[in-house]
Parts: sequence; structure tokens; C-alpha cells
Amino acid sequence: MGGDIPPPVDQLAAVSLTSDEASSSTVQKARFSDRVRIQSILGRPDGGAGLAGQKVRISGWVKTGREQGKGAFAFLEVNDGSCPANLQVMVDASVSDLSKLIATGTCVTVDGCLKLPPEGKGTKQKIELSVVEVVDVGTVDPGSYPIPKTKLTLERLREFLHLRARTNSISAIARIRHALAIATHTFFDEEGFLYVQTPIITTSDCEGAGEMFQVTTLISTTEKLERELIENPPPTEADVEAARVVVKERGEAVAELKAAKASKEAILASVAELNDAKANLAATEARSRLKPGLPKVDGKIDYSQDFFGRQAFLTVSGQLQVETYACGLSDVYTFGPTFRAENSHTSRHLAEFWMVEPELAFADLEDDMNCAEAYVKYMCKWLLEKRYDDMELMAKNFDKGCIDRLKLVASTPFGRLTYTEAIKILEEAVAKGKKFDNDVEWGIDLASEHERYLTEVVFQKPLIVYNYPKGIKAFYMRLNDDGKTVAAMDVLVPKVGELIGGSQREERIDVIMERLEEIGLPVEPYEWYLDLRRYGTAKHSGFGLGFERMVLFATGMDNIRDVIPFPRYPGRADL
Amino acid sequence: MGGDIPPPVDQLAAVSLTSDEASSSTVQKARFSDRVRIQSILGRPDGGAGLAGQKVRISGWVKTGREQGKGAFAFLEVNDGSCPANLQVMVDASVSDLSKLIATGTCVTVDGCLKLPPEGKGTKQKIELSVVEVVDVGTVDPGSYPIPKTKLTLERLREFLHLRARTNSISAIARIRHALAIATHTFFDEEGFLYVQTPIITTSDCEGAGEMFQVTTLISTTEKLERELIENPPPTEADVEAARVVVKERGEAVAELKAAKASKEAILASVAELNDAKANLAATEARSRLKPGLPKVDGKIDYSQDFFGRQAFLTVSGQLQVETYACGLSDVYTFGPTFRAENSHTSRHLAEFWMVEPELAFADLEDDMNCAEAYVKYMCKWLLEKRYDDMELMAKNFDKGCIDRLKLVASTPFGRLTYTEAIKILEEAVAKGKKFDNDVEWGIDLASEHERYLTEVVFQKPLIVYNYPKGIKAFYMRLNDDGKTVAAMDVLVPKVGELIGGSQREERIDVIMERLEEIGLPVEPYEWYLDLRRYGTAKHSGFGLGFERMVLFATGMDNIRDVIPFPRYPGRADL
Repeated sequence: MGGDIPPPVDQLAAVSLTSDEASSSTVQKARFSDRVRIQSILGRPDGGAGLAGQKVRISGWVKTGREQGKGAFAFLEVNDGSCPANLQVMVDASVSDLSKLIATGTCVTVDGCLKLPPEGKGTKQKIELSVVEVVDVGTVDPGSYPIPKTKLTLERLREFLHLRARTNSISAIARIRHALAIATHTFFDEEGFLYVQTPIITTSDCEGAGEMFQVTTLISTTEKLERELIENPPPTEADVEAARVVVKERGEAVAELKAAKASKEAILASVAELNDAKANLAATEARSRLKPGLPKVDGKIDYSQDFFGRQAFLTVSGQLQVETYACGLSDVYTFGPTFRAENSHTSRHLAEFWMVEPELAFADLEDDMNCAEAYVKYMCKWLLEKRYDDMELMAKNFDKGCIDRLKLVASTPFGRLTYTEAIKILEEAVAKGKKFDNDVEWGIDLASEHERYLTEVVFQKPLIVYNYPKGIKAFYMRLNDDGKTVAAMDVLVPKVGELIGGSQREERIDVIMERLEEIGLPVEPYEWYLDLRRYGTAKHSGFGLGFERMVLFATGMDNIRDVIPFPRYPGRADL
Repeated sequence: MGGDIPPPVDQLAAVSLTSDEASSSTVQKARFSDRVRIQSILGRPDGGAGLAGQKVRISGWVKTGREQGKGAFAFLEVNDGSCPANLQVMVDASVSDLSKLIATGTCVTVDGCLKLPPEGKGTKQKIELSVVEVVDVGTVDPGSYPIPKTKLTLERLREFLHLRARTNSISAIARIRHALAIATHTFFDEEGFLYVQTPIITTSDCEGAGEMFQVTTLISTTEKLERELIENPPPTEADVEAARVVVKERGEAVAELKAAKASKEAILASVAELNDAKANLAATEARSRLKPGLPKVDGKIDYSQDFFGRQAFLTVSGQLQVETYACGLSDVYTFGPTFRAENSHTSRHLAEFWMVEPELAFADLEDDMNCAEAYVKYMCKWLLEKRYDDMELMAKNFDKGCIDRLKLVASTPFGRLTYTEAIKILEEAVAKGKKFDNDVEWGIDLASEHERYLTEVVFQKPLIVYNYPKGIKAFYMRLNDDGKTVAAMDVLVPKVGELIGGSQREERIDVIMERLEEIGLPVEPYEWYLDLRRYGTAKHSGFGLGFERMVLFATGMDNIRDVIPFPRYPGRADL
């Protein structure tokens, strides 16, 4: 097959490999490569059928390959990551050594002619490629390739972070994650928000958000010093004393010369020697004080010697910093990595994860809820529109409800109820026999089981719970007039529970100072934050969305380690 | 003025404050606030004149305020960060206490009526707001406000990172930075690249890119232990010996009972006591080994006790990791923070900065150069189209050539020449009397002065220099057939010199192994990277753009600390 069919010369004449425009009869080359993306062929409404007869170069990795016709030809399923679908590629034995091509994971670049598949084979393929020339091959030894055709568990795949993007599941998740990220930037840009990169290294603590990683150069400078002290031991007390004696002697020599009214040159030379001796003594004393171990002052680590001159950490949230931009530029958001040094081994926690944190000036809690709802709906619609192919793959392989869930969230107005109403509903459920692991009473922080019960069982749609007891929320959330609750809100969705947490921020300087005192937090580290309230204070609100939570929600995956390219958790930071 | 003019009832009836559509005669409210963005008024082609007669609510901060007519009314220039222009706002003394409103930095929310300004005043304003009601005020004490109307130097503003976004310059830079970031995501999304978030915390070193920050929890756990050891001192050798004696005695007691053929219960009870004593001894011994200071094994820090079970760092580049995704998903990019723990105090270096790193599978160096050129041109065009207002501000206040530079780069094909040709040009210049601080000869790394001379003086346009000597480039760059140079390229632009560095990656396993050996790098840490070449290797290329360099280039600013919201450098990590 394949090689024996002459390419249709008349149609080839019309093929433009450099065309910038996709049309129904010409194929679009990738702009920065000499290949055509498989998505440009199979992603067309006609599945590529309209391209039959065209000559193209494609590249990708062989998913499955098999020789047929007693080795006369081979079929390869080739994927280049541009879409979940593989292009079926036929290679005649006269064109290439087939045995080099068929191993799973082989990388091929081939020139060929697109053809309609033989009719009546019941295949879903609308088009296939008949190879004219094998341009390039990156071979694979199937015996040692860590991710062969046999399906590996997701857990096992985590051992091969550098290769797992070649699997159907992880590549589909990568495309969905990309779509959600682009949807995020597009949504906020369209709504007039500015993307502000808040700092990763911080000297502030976003109160109580969690344990922080320390960022330092002290250990490496200490180790360097320790190595140096071994190679070149510090002066002993005797060395110091000897240096002291030299100073004394030279001082006496100067005095003698002066007493003897020696020449100016002689005195100056003697003074110079004395100064040298003093400098040597100072250096010797300083070096004698060098000790192995981290530098300390009064028993505490001397952070003035660290890179930033003070103790520094990885950020747990960009909120407080992004507020400084909201209070000047009005509508802003940050989208970046955040960190928790918590010893959590669950399927829901990572040490490094991405957060989206918008902050809206001149917006109250209701505006904040409206923004959160619009944003989540926008992402769901975007995914349904842009990556339906990958969502179908997720529905088939992992969570058959994931597409319906996206549709539900995209189309249904979110329920809204106060925390107090939520507690009432949960208490009624308990009264009717519903069992929770965590007790229900006004004042508790809702547990994940409560949140999921409300959104999945009671309302069966996304929910926004708002006005939480101040005792379980941060100092910066705006105190409501009841004096008991704060203007906080959480967005709960089926499958993951809490997706978003936000609040109207306390803009009244007197109230926020009282809250700090009430909680027992020191004022000094927050002076800059309080300045936003001292000078031209503005009503403002914001929220945070855990980006991996959103990817879990969208894909239906169960383990957060599978929805971030390079998961970091206790004991693991591969690559 | 203002308050005494009754709002035009007929026109107000036509105003829609909730309309989602901007049209020539209705004003568009911000979607998640009850205000109208000033950009929605002044950013119209007619400068807002077509909105005369409409009632709007606006919010923002007073840039300048002055009472006039002996205190009968006040003029406020109000800015909300949505655009560089201020809206002129008139408040009648009958509407509000004017003294509370006029201080620079005051935050106001006002309802009013848009009016055409009086003719013949020679003002640039096309529209102004006559206030009907002052809805909200965040006052300022001008005596203590750190950034009053008086112009502060950029250096002084860095002392007030939390307030500087309220200044014209820093807010214009923030909007330009936002536009460049959105242009980046839009360009790569349109070109079919996937955004991959590479890790911030890494256990790999992108060879020789620079000094790394360490990420650790060891210091805090050590300090905790040290506090605990002070409160509750560890057992002495005598304590351990005492515990050992108890074990011995109980062992003898068991032996005696057995010898005496005591009851099974008695023997079991005695064995239980022995086991307790053994457990106590083990715990006592373990605790007696606890020492202050970082945990060590064989004189080296025991990183098995650190959070990730090994030494971890902040990334210096996402390139090596993003290659793992390129070799499966074809075209990818990363856009995230990167770090250098270098003691650089220059205006061009930061300890934390953002990088854009695309990686293209099935692309050679020429494809890579084409992509880099297209991307830079795209950003320049985007800025000219979307933020011309802010570019005008930069041209007026900082660098009058910045708009022309953008136009030049957007429209001129980049020059391309080999490193060898570049050296020849520089040598000819030297021969003709041009003085450089750094010597010129084949083999040197081009210094910034050389790069700027080539792009600014010789070619007067952007340049791509390629095929550098292998001796000055990284091991992963593809060796050219001459055996002396590698397929590397740098994009040089006027004003900043090197903007982009990239290369075709070495995809041949034997060649890359030889290069590692030649350079003297160990193979083990790169095994995962080599796997990409062992299994289905693909031709691929990529580059890195320092995002702050691009912002410097666009804005014409001189100090990199002014083009990132929260600059980090030796001794400083405010907020």
C-alpha cells in the first residue's frame, strides 16, 4: 500500500505548504516548522477528508505501530500533541526499514500523501497518510523504554515526570490546563483587569495561610566558610596574642624613635609598620571569631548576613501585595505560583501550586461574587468550546460526568446562601440522620464533606456561601454590621468542594486595627498594608482560585499531582 | 458650577448603567462595580464628548485638587488607573466639604453629570464631570502622605513599593507590562503553543545559569529543636547509662524467672517490663544524640531531613523541564519567575525576574529565529495598538525615542549575521579606532557594549547573531558541522542589547554525552534530560526572553527595579 500509489500531480500543484490561511482545500503548515500539525488535519470539521490528495510533512511520536502483509507495510498511529487524536500513517517496506518505526515512542518525521481510507472498514478515521519518504527517525529500544504501550497507572507515571507528557491522559490534561490558563488571562483582560506579578520571594506573611518555605543563601555561605576553615584553620588564641605582641613592640618602637627625636622618615616608616601590625591584629582577631555553623547574634540566627538582609520566604498568597496595585489601578489580578511547607500527603495538597487572585477596587462582596461566578462560567464555556476533544477523552477514560458538570456550571446561576443558612441546612440534615465526621454548629469552619454535601446533594449546583463567622476568617475581611460575621464568600462546586475563597476587604483603618488587636497580631509587619487604609482608602474586594483545583474540577481527575506538570510534595521534587 | 445645573432629565432616561455594550451614546459601566471606568469615558475616539449629558458614577484617586472661586467650588483631576488620563471633576461647595476632597491621594466616588467644558479655555479635556453627589471619600493627611503631588525620584519611590502604583509613571509601566504579558499569551496561543508551568522549586541545575537560592525548612526545624532542647535538655550520658542499667536488671529478672520456672503470666509480665525498658533506652539514646545546629551526616548537612528529602533550589530557568513537554506536545512555552542569588547591584539585574521560554519541536535554528522575530514584532505591534496612550506618556516623561523604536522593531526585518561575521565587524571598528572596554577576538562572549554597538551604531535595527563558539555556550546547544560552533542565537535590540538567547538543542545522544564529558559535567543529574534523546529523540529549538528586559526596551526606562512591581535585589525584598 501507500508507496505504490503515485501522488496526484494535479492536486499537489495546488498545495501550499507556506500558506498562512486555513481553508477547506489547503493544509496549514505550522508557522515555525516545516511540518503540518496533526490538529490542522484531523481537527477540521470534516476530520481531514477534504485534504485528500494533498502532500504533507508530519512529525510526531508513534503511539502504536504494527507490521502487516507479512512485513510488506506498517501502520503507525502518530500523535504530535496538538490534539488527542492520532493520524494513521502507512509506510511501505520499500520506503523504509519498518522495524525501526513501529516501537511505541519512536519519533518520526515523514512526507506523504493524504488519502481517504478504504471504505467499509468501519474505521473512525476520515483521512490517513501514505508515506512517500521517511525524513527523520528517533528510535526507541522497547526493552528499556519506561512508558511502553502497556497502560501504566497514574501513580507509576509520576515516577517518569520527564516522559509522562507523551501519554494520552497527561497530554490531554496539559491541553485543558493550557486552555484554562488562557481563558483566565482572556477573561480578566477583556474585563479591564491588569495582570500584576506579585513577588514569589517575600518578607511578609499572609496571616495564617500556612507554613512557609525559607529562601536563603546562608547555608551555602556557611558551608563555604566551614570548608575554608578546615583548609585554612582560624588563628588560635596564641596567634592572636602573638599579633598583639607585635603591635605592642612596634608601638614601643615608635615611642622610642619619637623620644630619641629620630628623623621624620624614620618615624613615619615606624608608624607605617605599626599600622600594618594593627591591621594584621584586627584581621587575625576577626578570623579567630569565625565559627562553623550558621552566623548568630545573641543566640539567634543573624539574618542581616542573608541575601536580602532579613529572613525571606516563598509566598503563600499574592493577595496583600496585589491589593497595593488595586488601590491605585483599580482592577488587577495575579496568577502565579504559591507555596505551603506543610507535611500533607493527601491527593488535594501540593507544596507548590498556582493561584489566580483578582482584586477589585470599588467593589463590594456582591460584585466580588458576581465576578467569581462570571469567571468560573467563562472558563467552563471556553473549555467546552476549545477543548471538547480532550474533554471527551477525560469523560471516556476518567470521569464520565465531567462534560455534564462543565455544562451545568456554565449554564446554571450559582446558588447563594449565607453561612448561617448553610449551617441550618446541615443541622436539619443531621437531625434527619445524615452522618458527618465533623460536628455541625454555628461557628465551625465548613469541612469538605459539608461543602460537598451542600453543593452535590442539597443544591446539585455551584453555590456561594457568604458572611462567615469572623472567628474563622482572616483579619483583613470586612466586618459586617452584625459584629459577628465578615463579608467573606466561598464558591463551592461539585467534585472538589471549595474552588474559590474571597472577601470584601476591611477598608476602615480603625476597624482593621481593632481586628489585629483582637486576634493578637502585631501591627508593625502590616504597616504598609495599613497605609492603604490611611491614605485614600477605597472599598475593595477580591478572591483566590486554586488553579489546580479548577483543573481537577474540569478534568474529573482525583489526584492533584496529575494535573500539574511537575508536582512538589513532601519528599518529592523531581527534575 | 456643577451642582446648580439640573441634570438633563430626557438624556438621563436613555442612560443604561447596566448595558454590556459600548455604543457611541451610552456609557459602559464596569461589570463588577457600580462605577464607570474613566477609560470608558476618555478612551473613546471622541475623548468622551459624545457622552455629554449622561449621568455617571466614577471612582478614583485625586491627582491634583484646587479650590476656586473663593471656595465656591473645586476642580479635581481624578485617575482610576484604567488609563493615563485624568477626568476633570467639578464639585460645588454646596455638594460637599471641599477641603476633604482636594488633597492629592484622596479617594473619591462621585455621582455626576458629564458636560462639555466651556469653550475657548484652550483645554485638552473633551469632557468633564459636574458632581451631583459625593458618595464616598477616603481622605488623606497631606502632611504625612508619602507620595504627595511633588514629583519624587524613581529611586525614592522604591521606598514606597506599596504606594508607587498610584504615580503616573509606575501605573503607565504597569499597563504596558500587562499588555506585553497578554500579547505573549495571545501570540503563543494563536500559534498553537501550550503554556506549561515549569517548577519554581527544583532539584536540577540549568548548567551554569547562575547562583541559586536554597529552599528549605531545615533552619526552622533546627531552630524549633534548639528551643526544645533548651526547655527540655537532652539526657546526659549518665541518664543513658541509667536506662541501660534498668534494661540489664530487667533482663536478669526475666532470666531468673525462667530459671525458676515461674508461671507463664509472671514471665510474660516481666518480659513486657523488659521491652518497656528497652524502648525507653532506645528513646533516651536517640534523644541524647540530638544536637543543636543543622543535622549532619559524615560532616555534611543531612538533606534527607529537609522537606523534599534532598537539597532544593529556586529555578534559574524552566528550559530543561519545558523540553520534556516539547518532546511530546511539540510546541510549548513557559512564562514564570526565575531567580539568581547573585550579588549584583546593577540597574540590569534582579534576584527575581520573569522569563518567557518557548520550546519548539521539529524546529531548527532558523525556525527558532523566525519565531523569536515574530514574537518580538507581535509585542511591539500590540503595544502600539493597545497602549499608545501610555507610550506617549513614556515618550514625554522618559525616553522620547521609545515609540519610534517600537515602530522600527515592528516593521523592520531583523538583520541576521553569524558570530564570526559580528567579530569581523567589531575588529574592523577597532582597527578604525573604536574603543571598547573589552577586547575583541574570536572566542569571546560578546559584551553588552559590543552588542549595542552592532545593533545601535552599525545596523541601527534589531539583529540576530548566531552560531557562537561552543566554548562560551551551554552543553545542550547543538554542535554545528564545523565542530567549533553551536547553533545558538541571540536577539539584540537597541537600548537593551541582548533581549533573547536561544538555540537548537542537541538531539544526538552520543554528541551530547561527549559534550558533557568535554565540559566535565557529571552525567547522573542529567539522566532524565538524556532520556529525551534516548527515546524517540526529536529535533527541537527554543529561546528565552527576559520579560523585564522587554519592558525596559518598550518603556525606555533605565532601571529594571522600576519595571517589575516588587523588585528583589541584594539587601531588599520589601513586602
